[in-house]
Amino acid sequence: MTFANIGTLGAHPGKRDELIRILTRPNNALIEAGCRIYEVGAHEDDPNTVFVIELWDSAAAHRASLELPSVRAAIVEAMPLLSGEMGGNHFDVVGSPLRR
Amino acid sequence: MTFANIGTLGAHPGKRDELIRILTRPNNALIEAGCRIYEVGAHEDDPNTVFVIELWDSAAAHRASLELPSVRAAIVEAMPLLSGEMGGNHFDVVGSPLRR
Repeated sequence: MTFANIGTLGAHPGKRDELIRILTRPNNALIEAGCRIYEVGAHEDDPNTVFVIELWDSAAAHRASLELPSVRAAIVEAMPLLSGEMGGNHFDVVGSPLRR
Repeated sequence: MTFANIGTLGAHPGKRDELIRILTRPNNALIEAGCRIYEVGAHEDDPNTVFVIELWDSAAAHRASLELPSVRAAIVEAMPLLSGEMGGNHFDVVGSPLRR
């Protein structure tokens, strides 16, 4: 069942774009690990927040991806930029009006 | 610029699945209006919440879709099922590690 991980990451003032660069760095290992959608976003009214949408083949695939060397390296690189404010949801996808 | 609309919709107890049926009813008008991703989700630990992920060609496309007859009809149909609790974010997509 497709697993969705939706999140908001707080960045220290002035560090949002650097955090975005890390999160959007091309990484085929995510696709091989079962990631189908990974969108990184921002809102002009919220200069210190990075938004993330992830869709994975399963919750297990998402969990396993956190052990990937490239993901662990990105987390270490991003850590100093994070304010500690985080939010989000994860859930199972049950359908779409775009699919028969 | 791709526009993301992420939301949580509270349903009255026992009404979540009926709300999901309305939201996942096939609707090609959404695709024609510029909707690229529309995922509806649930979490077993949260029996009264429906999760929604939408990606649109633009914020304007999303706004215009709310005027579609099929969308207006679905909103009217869903209204009695909603508890009034709502949450979410909308933002511009700025990149993805899955794209070069």
